[in-house]
Amino acid sequence: MKNILLHNKTPRSLSGIFLLLMLLANTVELMAQDKKDFLSAKESEPSNFGWMADFPPSNDKTISAKDGSYLHFPELRWSVVNMRKLMPTTEVTPKLAPPQAFDYALDKNIDSLTFLPWEAKEKMTWKESLAKNYTDGMLILHDGKIVYENYFSAMDETKVHAVFSVTKSFVGTLAGILIAEGKLDETKTASFYVPELKNSAFEDATVRQILDMTTSVEYSEDYADPDAEVWEFSDAGNALIKAKGDKEPVGYYAFLETVKKKGPHGKAFKYKTVNAQAAGWIITRATGKSIAELLSERIWSKIGMEQEANLMVDAKGIPFSGGGLSAGLRDLARFGELMRNKGNWKGEQLFPKEVVETIMNGASKEDFAKSEHPGLKGWSYKNLWWITENEDGAYAARGIYGQTIYIDPAAKMVIVRLASYPVAANAANDATSLPAYQAVADYLMKKK
Amino acid sequence: MKNILLHNKTPRSLSGIFLLLMLLANTVELMAQDKKDFLSAKESEPSNFGWMADFPPSNDKTISAKDGSYLHFPELRWSVVNMRKLMPTTEVTPKLAPPQAFDYALDKNIDSLTFLPWEAKEKMTWKESLAKNYTDGMLILHDGKIVYENYFSAMDETKVHAVFSVTKSFVGTLAGILIAEGKLDETKTASFYVPELKNSAFEDATVRQILDMTTSVEYSEDYADPDAEVWEFSDAGNALIKAKGDKEPVGYYAFLETVKKKGPHGKAFKYKTVNAQAAGWIITRATGKSIAELLSERIWSKIGMEQEANLMVDAKGIPFSGGGLSAGLRDLARFGELMRNKGNWKGEQLFPKEVVETIMNGASKEDFAKSEHPGLKGWSYKNLWWITENEDGAYAARGIYGQTIYIDPAAKMVIVRLASYPVAANAANDATSLPAYQAVADYLMKKK
Repeated sequence: MKNILLHNKTPRSLSGIFLLLMLLANTVELMAQDKKDFLSAKESEPSNFGWMADFPPSNDKTISAKDGSYLHFPELRWSVVNMRKLMPTTEVTPKLAPPQAFDYALDKNIDSLTFLPWEAKEKMTWKESLAKNYTDGMLILHDGKIVYENYFSAMDETKVHAVFSVTKSFVGTLAGILIAEGKLDETKTASFYVPELKNSAFEDATVRQILDMTTSVEYSEDYADPDAEVWEFSDAGNALIKAKGDKEPVGYYAFLETVKKKGPHGKAFKYKTVNAQAAGWIITRATGKSIAELLSERIWSKIGMEQEANLMVDAKGIPFSGGGLSAGLRDLARFGELMRNKGNWKGEQLFPKEVVETIMNGASKEDFAKSEHPGLKGWSYKNLWWITENEDGAYAARGIYGQTIYIDPAAKMVIVRLASYPVAANAANDATSLPAYQAVADYLMKKK
Repeated sequence: MKNILLHNKTPRSLSGIFLLLMLLANTVELMAQDKKDFLSAKESEPSNFGWMADFPPSNDKTISAKDGSYLHFPELRWSVVNMRKLMPTTEVTPKLAPPQAFDYALDKNIDSLTFLPWEAKEKMTWKESLAKNYTDGMLILHDGKIVYENYFSAMDETKVHAVFSVTKSFVGTLAGILIAEGKLDETKTASFYVPELKNSAFEDATVRQILDMTTSVEYSEDYADPDAEVWEFSDAGNALIKAKGDKEPVGYYAFLETVKKKGPHGKAFKYKTVNAQAAGWIITRATGKSIAELLSERIWSKIGMEQEANLMVDAKGIPFSGGGLSAGLRDLARFGELMRNKGNWKGEQLFPKEVVETIMNGASKEDFAKSEHPGLKGWSYKNLWWITENEDGAYAARGIYGQTIYIDPAAKMVIVRLASYPVAANAANDATSLPAYQAVADYLMKKK
């Protein structure tokens, strides 16, 4: 439990002794409380606290991205829908394309569906799971129609919500499209596309290994370790504290150049955000366009998106392709539905079917099993997507604090959940999420 | 000429001796070159320089809002369409309302219309004036139809462009609406609405005096003076260098509390941005809503806006109501057309006519004449709008570097110009702008 709780430590930018003190204080604080001590979903709603609500907020009600406090629970619950107020961003836009409305076939039975959470003795209802998981937004599509849609806490239908590592799956899909179109060669190395990566761990890593995260790099994403490289990566990307003349490395890409190799690539899956950032760089060099531009051109302007989305950028204007996207709930569902239909949007094939089929076919379960994901037995990881390898052929985009786009092809189901769970790692909420999704899938499959 | 050129010094955040050195260096640099030495509009297009264009840009191609360089010409030409990439912003949004297209009646004769620039001997064509004024976007509405629309440099129809002090006129219009609705009393003082302003210059300033900028405050907006209070105001509002624990004042509002009174209010017009920021605070307290929310609710969601706009925010999340708006060219024209129609949008009266009539009626020309605006003889200033007091009853929103929404009721004309002129103060481009607008107005009035 302790280890999971410590994942609640989130990127912030301080240095040296102050950083160490912060971490120690936080560790003690987290050790002192059991997970059950977190405020409930209702108790932790931002409207109860008045953060950034007064004009102006007092210092103790001010949330800033200058340190990691903006991602600490419960402040996190405000930050997830306000990322652009905290740091520079770039737009991901429908580019004047008109929005297309969903059809609705709301199903009131879903709230009372029950499921058995992992390692639990008592069943839980779908509705109960929403508060349990600190859900901010929940949408279920069945065969393209909205059967369930609900907003909580600081989220509503006009807002965008941070999706963290769900961003990676957008990037992995873009990579898949470029591979299918012959614009990107998955057998080539990172340094073929990005010469600056020549002296880094990525030099001889292939595009395929990067997309499937089977690279072997000296990079720890353990937030409980003050020496973990994730802090340096986070510092490098924080535009609020980096600019011309500041200490190196400045920017996400400059950090990637410093990553060292640990062992041979291609032997095991190991989830490291730097791979997604490297994938973003490779795609950008292969196309001459930023990830934000590509998302606008290839996805946002093609499927009737109704809201502008945004991507956090570093001091060099480079989007955080490992986790910087904020988007609307229904728009994320549109993307999920595009995937479920293998690139076909209302009759138009936006990209080859094989892009989605490659993802659905998954990767080596053995490689995946070498990583520490005890809850995700038998899963694999492909093109920056998580593959359940279950009977339904379900696969998912997943982001810390409970974000997901979960696609169940057999059930013709797409679930989008946005959340602000107190603990970063999804291992903390999977027990009350994944079996709930399966319960809905089973229900929808039986439905006529 | 020197004085005008020095207005090119723009807000940036450095302190003490470094600031002084920068200013001296810049002064010498500006004194050494004549205005004609600036790169032309074509020469200064961002695509010629590669700023922020590579992935990542090198240090000398990196533009940052940590210092004032992002607003120095020619870097300015990139920054005006990329504000949100440089600093935190908040959205101003149509809130899912569908966009409404303009009707077009393009008129090819406009490009060849001629006018005599002030103090010039030779006439200039409209088309020539566009490059002369470093125009990024130009749109002319005649009786609600687009007769002219053009994009240049880094701007296009999918982008938003910084409008600087045009923002003030949006805020002044919101104030007018609230006054007309009885939600704001123009005879009350600032401290009636905002008790925190009790020990500041604004304590006994009325809402009316603030909206018409007839307050008398110890606040210099002279960018050539390193001791000018504008630097402190700018520092206070820069979210990139301010956060919890940083030196006071933190945030635009905290700065307003420190502004000292100079003499009795209500005696003379004096253009000072702090008034617009104070107006934003008063409006916010009177309604419980931020300027961004109010713009979304009262304007953006009501008149078929097609793009999300944004407002820069400080470290407290407070929008810069004195100049932080970025918006699309056509959307700015929609607002201009709403004003021209006195609040009526396609048959629906969104706010009382008197809101616009109060503005059009102007204010004291004598009060205005006490300020230094030699080019704007006989003008007045009302509700954060500039009133020409000419025969056509024209009035305008104006922002540094050449931004304007110019409304000529007699000619049923709305002009929106977005620009990135090398010199901040509009006195530098009025000679080739205002007579050009009048030439178009005269032409349109003669047209059947």
